Amino acid sequence: MSENRKTDRPGEPWLLTPGPLTTSAGVKRAMLRDWGSRDPAFIAMTARVRERLVALAGGEGSHVCVPLQGSGTFVVEAGLGTLIPRGGKALVLVNGAYGARIAKILTVIGRAHEVYETPEDTPPDPEEVARRLAADTAIGHVVLVHCETTSGILNPVEAIARVVAEAGRALILDAMSAFGALPLDLARTPVQTVLASANKCLEGVPGIGFAIIETAALDAAAGNAPSLSLDLHDQWRGLEANGQWRFTPPTHVLAALDEALNEHAGEGGVAGRGARYTRNCEILVEGLQALGLELYLPRALQAPIIVTVHAPADPAFDFSAFYDAVAAQGYLIYPGKLTRAETFRVGCIGRLGEAEMRGAIAAIGAALGTLGVKERGARC
Amino acid sequence: MSENRKTDRPGEPWLLTPGPLTTSAGVKRAMLRDWGSRDPAFIAMTARVRERLVALAGGEGSHVCVPLQGSGTFVVEAGLGTLIPRGGKALVLVNGAYGARIAKILTVIGRAHEVYETPEDTPPDPEEVARRLAADTAIGHVVLVHCETTSGILNPVEAIARVVAEAGRALILDAMSAFGALPLDLARTPVQTVLASANKCLEGVPGIGFAIIETAALDAAAGNAPSLSLDLHDQWRGLEANGQWRFTPPTHVLAALDEALNEHAGEGGVAGRGARYTRNCEILVEGLQALGLELYLPRALQAPIIVTVHAPADPAFDFSAFYDAVAAQGYLIYPGKLTRAETFRVGCIGRLGEAEMRGAIAAIGAALGTLGVKERGARC
Repeated sequence: MSENRKTDRPGEPWLLTPGPLTTSAGVKRAMLRDWGSRDPAFIAMTARVRERLVALAGGEGSHVCVPLQGSGTFVVEAGLGTLIPRGGKALVLVNGAYGARIAKILTVIGRAHEVYETPEDTPPDPEEVARRLAADTAIGHVVLVHCETTSGILNPVEAIARVVAEAGRALILDAMSAFGALPLDLARTPVQTVLASANKCLEGVPGIGFAIIETAALDAAAGNAPSLSLDLHDQWRGLEANGQWRFTPPTHVLAALDEALNEHAGEGGVAGRGARYTRNCEILVEGLQALGLELYLPRALQAPIIVTVHAPADPAFDFSAFYDAVAAQGYLIYPGKLTRAETFRVGCIGRLGEAEMRGAIAAIGAALGTLGVKERGARC
Repeated sequence: MSENRKTDRPGEPWLLTPGPLTTSAGVKRAMLRDWGSRDPAFIAMTARVRERLVALAGGEGSHVCVPLQGSGTFVVEAGLGTLIPRGGKALVLVNGAYGARIAKILTVIGRAHEVYETPEDTPPDPEEVARRLAADTAIGHVVLVHCETTSGILNPVEAIARVVAEAGRALILDAMSAFGALPLDLARTPVQTVLASANKCLEGVPGIGFAIIETAALDAAAGNAPSLSLDLHDQWRGLEANGQWRFTPPTHVLAALDEALNEHAGEGGVAGRGARYTRNCEILVEGLQALGLELYLPRALQAPIIVTVHAPADPAFDFSAFYDAVAAQGYLIYPGKLTRAETFRVGCIGRLGEAEMRGAIAAIGAALGTLGVKERGARC
C-alpha cells in the first residue's frame, strides 16, 4: 500500500473510517481528466461500470445495475421509493443506526412499514422474520442491512434471504459497507435489490451509489417513486434509451470508480479484497486487545469492516483528546454510534494493509499513553 | 488557459457544453487527496465554501448556503420540496426544458402549480407575472430559470424579482448555469432561494449542488420536504449542529470546489469570470456567423453561457457525423434541446479562453467543409 503515500500533499492521514476512506493514488489520478457526459467515451465507461457491478454480484441475466448521483443514503432512499409501491408495506430489520435510518426514510416518503428490532449486538432471527411474514400478508418487502456499521456486526443475509424467498416476498439488501468484500452471489441467494456505494469496499471516491435490481421487478416499478431525482426506474429507462445519465453525472467520480474496479479485479475480486480486509481486521482486533481495550462484538459476529471498541473506564479517557492524539500521528478514527454504550470505532477498509493497521495500533497505544489511560476495560 | 493542457492524458477534449465542462488542472489536482468527512480539516473546508458562496451572491446576514450531494436537478428538487409547503402553490415560468423539468418535479412531489409558458426565444413578461399573482392568492412561490440553457436565453431576473416582491410572494431562482458569471446581488434583488451547482460557471467538478436560502424561510421549512436525502432544512440543521454533512459528502468534489473558488476569486470574482465568458461568447457568435451559420437567439437575449445554432439547411448536414468530425479535432459540442427547431449548441463556459474558442470555430468550419455543408442557413 506504500504507493499511496505519493500524494500531492505530504502528511495526508490514513482514514480508518467506514468512508470516505483511503483510496489508491491510481484511483485519485483517474480524476485528472474531464469527460463530456454525453460523449461516446463516457457512455462506454458508464456501461462498463454497470456491467462489472452486476457481475461482481453474480446477477448477470437476472439483475441490472442503476447508478445514482449522491451518497449511499440517496440510493437507499431511491431503492425503497422505487421498489416498494405506494400501497405496499415493508418489514425493516433494525440493529443499528442504518436500519433505523431505513425506517425513518419509509416514514418520510410515506411507505407503511413494521420494524423488527434486535439489540445492536444481536442479528435478527430468521425464524422470527418467517413468523412475521406469515402473520402479515400485506408485507411485500423485507429490508436488511448486510453489515451494520453502527457496531460492525455481520447480519445473516443467506438465512434471511431464504425465509423471505420461501414466503414469496422480496428482499432489499443495504450492502453499503459490504459490497465488494463480503461474498454475495445473486445466482444462489435471492435478493431483489442490492444497494451499495462506490466509496466503501470498492475503494472508489464518494459521490455515486448504485442499485442492483431484478430486471422484472424494476420493469414493474414505473411510477412508484415519490421523487424525480431518486427514481431508479426512470434512471434505468434513461440509461437503457441512450446510455446516458438523465441528469449530470459526477464524471470524475465515475472515472475513479472505473479505475477502482480495475484495481479490485487486480486484487482478485471479492475474494482478494475480502482476504485483505479480514487480515486487516485480525491485526486490528488482536492489536486493540493487546492494548487492553475491550471490543464490543464477539469475534463470530464481527464483519471485517469496522471494529467497535468500548471507551476505557479510566476517567483520563476523553474521546476528543484521544482522536486528536491519534490524528496527530496520521490516522483518523471514528466516533461511536451506539445508543447504549460509550464506544469508538476503527475501520479496516480502504487502501490499507498490514503496515497501516500496525501503524494505527501503535498510534492508538501511544495516544492512550499520552492521555494517561490506565484502566482500559469498558466503562460501567 | 494553456496550463490546462497539462493533464495525465494527452488528447483530452475541450468541452464546449453546459457541463460537465472543462476545469483547470489545479481544480483537478485538488482531488488528489482523501479527506475524513468528520475531521476538523474537512469541516473547516465545508464552512469556508458555504460562506464564500453566500458572499458571491451578496447574501451575507440574510441567506445561508446549504450544499447537497448530487447533480443540479437534485438540489432543484430539494429546494422546491423544502421551501414550498405541502399545501402551497407555485407559479412556474417556463421557456425551455429546465423550466419544464421544474413543473415535472412539482407534479412528482405533489405540489400544486400553475405554468406560465412563453416560446423558447421569449422571456416571461413581468406584467403577466404580476397579473397572475394578483389573480391567484394561493400562489406563494414563483420559480424562474436565470439562464435557460435549452436555448441560452437570459431571463429578466431583476424585473421578475421586483414584481414578485411587490406582490409579497417568494422567488425561487434556478441559477444553475449562471451563478458565478452573471451578476446577482441578493442585497438588492429579492430572491428567497437561489439554486446552483459547483460545475457550471464556478468551474468545479460535478457532484455537488447548493442552495442559498433566506435564513428565516429555511428556518420555517421544517417538515416540508417529502424526502430525507433531499431535505435542505434537515441538511442545514445538521451542518449548523456540528459542521458535518448528514450523509457522506463527495469529499474530493468539495475540495475541487474549494480550489475552484480560489481561482474564481483570482480571476476577479463574478465580474472577471463574466467578462471572460462574454468575450468567449462574442468570439463564438461572430465566428459561427462568419461561417454562415444562423443563430437561434437575437444578441439582446443571448446569455454568455451557451449559443444555440440552427442546423444548416443543406441535406449534407447530419448532427451525429458533424459531432464526430468536430470531436476528432478535440472539441465536444452539444446537441440541441429545442422542441420546435432543429439545432445544436456550443457552450462558452468552463476553463476556456480566446484560443480555445477560436480553435472551436476552426474545428466547426473544418467539419462543415468535410461534410460538404454548403447551404448553412436554418432549415425550414
